[in-house]
Amino acid sequence: VTAILSEADIGAWDEAVDVLIAGGGCAGACAALGAAAEGAEVMLLERGMEIGGTSALSGGVIYCGGGTAVQRACGFEDSVDAMRGYLIASTGCGPDVAKVDRYCEDSVGHFNWLVGLGVPFKDSYWPYNYEPTTDDCLYYSGSEFSPPYCDLARPAPRGHTVQAWGSCKGGGKLMSVLAPHVARAAKLVTEARIRALIRASDGRIVGATFLRDDKTYAVRARAGLVVATGGFVMNREMIGRYAPQALPLKMLGNPYDDGSGILLGAAAGAATINMGAVMYPCPILSPSGLIRGILMNAKGQRFVDESSNHKRIGESSVLAQGGKIYLLVDSQIYEDPAMGLPIVASGETARELEDELGWTPGSIGATLDLYNRYAREGRDPLFGKGREHLVPLDHPPYAVFDCSVEATGVYLTMTLGGLMTRVTGEVMTPEGEVLPGLYAAGRATSCLSAQSCGSSGLQVGEGTFFGRLAGQAAARAGAA
Amino acid sequence: VTAILSEADIGAWDEAVDVLIAGGGCAGACAALGAAAEGAEVMLLERGMEIGGTSALSGGVIYCGGGTAVQRACGFEDSVDAMRGYLIASTGCGPDVAKVDRYCEDSVGHFNWLVGLGVPFKDSYWPYNYEPTTDDCLYYSGSEFSPPYCDLARPAPRGHTVQAWGSCKGGGKLMSVLAPHVARAAKLVTEARIRALIRASDGRIVGATFLRDDKTYAVRARAGLVVATGGFVMNREMIGRYAPQALPLKMLGNPYDDGSGILLGAAAGAATINMGAVMYPCPILSPSGLIRGILMNAKGQRFVDESSNHKRIGESSVLAQGGKIYLLVDSQIYEDPAMGLPIVASGETARELEDELGWTPGSIGATLDLYNRYAREGRDPLFGKGREHLVPLDHPPYAVFDCSVEATGVYLTMTLGGLMTRVTGEVMTPEGEVLPGLYAAGRATSCLSAQSCGSSGLQVGEGTFFGRLAGQAAARAGAA
Repeated sequence: VTAILSEADIGAWDEAVDVLIAGGGCAGACAALGAAAEGAEVMLLERGMEIGGTSALSGGVIYCGGGTAVQRACGFEDSVDAMRGYLIASTGCGPDVAKVDRYCEDSVGHFNWLVGLGVPFKDSYWPYNYEPTTDDCLYYSGSEFSPPYCDLARPAPRGHTVQAWGSCKGGGKLMSVLAPHVARAAKLVTEARIRALIRASDGRIVGATFLRDDKTYAVRARAGLVVATGGFVMNREMIGRYAPQALPLKMLGNPYDDGSGILLGAAAGAATINMGAVMYPCPILSPSGLIRGILMNAKGQRFVDESSNHKRIGESSVLAQGGKIYLLVDSQIYEDPAMGLPIVASGETARELEDELGWTPGSIGATLDLYNRYAREGRDPLFGKGREHLVPLDHPPYAVFDCSVEATGVYLTMTLGGLMTRVTGEVMTPEGEVLPGLYAAGRATSCLSAQSCGSSGLQVGEGTFFGRLAGQAAARAGAA
Repeated sequence: VTAILSEADIGAWDEAVDVLIAGGGCAGACAALGAAAEGAEVMLLERGMEIGGTSALSGGVIYCGGGTAVQRACGFEDSVDAMRGYLIASTGCGPDVAKVDRYCEDSVGHFNWLVGLGVPFKDSYWPYNYEPTTDDCLYYSGSEFSPPYCDLARPAPRGHTVQAWGSCKGGGKLMSVLAPHVARAAKLVTEARIRALIRASDGRIVGATFLRDDKTYAVRARAGLVVATGGFVMNREMIGRYAPQALPLKMLGNPYDDGSGILLGAAAGAATINMGAVMYPCPILSPSGLIRGILMNAKGQRFVDESSNHKRIGESSVLAQGGKIYLLVDSQIYEDPAMGLPIVASGETARELEDELGWTPGSIGATLDLYNRYAREGRDPLFGKGREHLVPLDHPPYAVFDCSVEATGVYLTMTLGGLMTRVTGEVMTPEGEVLPGLYAAGRATSCLSAQSCGSSGLQVGEGTFFGRLAGQAAARAGAA
């Protein structure tokens, strides 16, 4: 496999366009629209039979804020500063500040652009911390009310769910609305697999070859090439190499999330960053009454605000607790977990639970006593769980559910690292220079949530937002 | 800066050797010896005025085991399996098993090779968990007695300190012993800075250019080029990009640890891995009587066996506790910390400490009660601290030292990720193929401790071990 070819090796171009886009998920689709709006001639290569990719399988949640029409209609105040403050604090150490800034400043504009394309959002609020199972729109898709975030930025709900009835239907709706726009904006070539990037003698990326029906075509990209091929969660070799902690988790994506575009970019000299970062959604606290329970690590200690977004809980579990966590409930709040979590202990007292689990006597007891002492006052000074989720757990019998990675099989994962890009989507080299002619967006890149993604709506949010910017930038480079 | 040149662009070679080595730390020095032993003509380029690099600044601890002469002389039994079991368990998720296996299988042989070169090791045991401050040799340089490691592999001391009197003198001694061997094995060019790798039309790396006294030279490497340029801890831009969590820490290295070789390799098409991994040595529990205290996070919870190696404590602190940790002592074990840690609370009861710190009443109390309950029995069932470090903390007044990153300034760091290599030192591409002609070793690569380094002696251990292998492999490739 030769991932990079010299222009001199290309006998004749089969086709030439201004902007060539690899991948038809939300990032590639919006790159096509962005480029076409600048007057560029665009071709989009998609490996599947139609565009959509993993975006179409998603819930279609877009993290937007700063005062969108839906936020206002539902009576929520928000500001660019509050949104920015939350994202800077919650997306890991050393966030890409330039991307966060741009994403927040233009969030209302981006939302309006999607609405203008016909993407439907209902003016309604969903009062839970998980994706709507109805056709409702707006919800707290992050951990805006959890410390330390609530102290750093005024909370507002920013998960905007594309309107479509049922669970996890918004992404399909989003892509079906974008599809006819893409068909007008670009020449769409489906079942096409990009094989190599083509480099001119001056180092510029000037096109690509792709395989379709056993024939290889060479397409010249006069202005630029946008890699929007998705992440690498389906490439077990890459996961083993870069993010082995994700190997035991359920991979979230489609078979084409094999890192092909990241490898092509790297072979062309692009830097990759945050390759060890993945997300860890684990919807264990469902039904949501279970948020009133206590999540413990294997030493009987609490470690997280149970009302956090399930992605934050999953990240805390895998990265800081070895993936071994447990849920303690009493008879008053007992409900059968939706995910069928196994009960590993039950008893009238903490001591009985400790004995059944083989844990240190006093370990659960100390945690439970301290929790109950403050829950009786409606407070959680240690982890900041919201008052509405606080009841003392003093109605025996108790039960402990095993919420560990191994026991549950409900931890999902998706990769967050990839090609290093500027805000414009320009791909960078390890030396920090622009790799001319090459652009990227979506999960093939390391975007603003790449170090840590404890909130929902950033993947499709970033993909559509930075995909559009990358298409624009590539088209403008050609016009310049 | 052009980091990669085509062979066609090189007018004339200034020199030609079989094996060209970039960097004269322990990895480059041993690569030179390994290559010369295979009969290769070798040139070693060193940026400084003499070889040594960061290796010469180190304590000169080499993690060796499986039954070395020193282990046997000091009465310790060890086996390849026990050493392997400890390293597999303690070097992070998804260790490089092939490298760990080779490192353990040949550990005694490697130690004997060093002894044969004249590297001195005293047949003596140092009964502390930090580097000898005398000229003693053997100590527990990892966390072999801490759970879960002690349950997975029979503990043995494996830190072998090069004999030299005083603190942190072994590395200088090591390099001064190696230097005359290197001078015989290789043409040594000091104050030489490698500028670009040279690639033939078939993709093979065939040499490099280097700068010396404002003149650029091109050297052909007939058999191979070994990158042994060290890590990137002194390159703040790279740290910010790949390991921003290390930015607040004290950088451990010399100014040439700027990632130059990693960038050169990447520009030539090499994959980099584990770039976000760094080590976190933090010698806070000194004098060692302070190990009898309790380390707490900012919620008053314990999180680690206090008798662990200080690198493991630092890693737990930074990665899982946000770098905010505290040490609780009572009057019976009180000693002034060697590192001058600030006292942030004192009082007769846990409650007084909580009040002074503004922490949740009951938080320290719950931890202290549980700890003391078992310390009275000489046990630590929760974290497994050794009996010799266990006394109940029930002699008020108490004091709390702030051991946080921000408060102390005693957290050090060094990078662990780099070029992806095989056991042989052959450098790999992102597609998992060998990049012909290019080899690497030492901290310019991601070696076996790259995901996590909670033990001392692996850096110089790996550098010397895999450096020698890389030199051998390059020389043999030329002979083939």
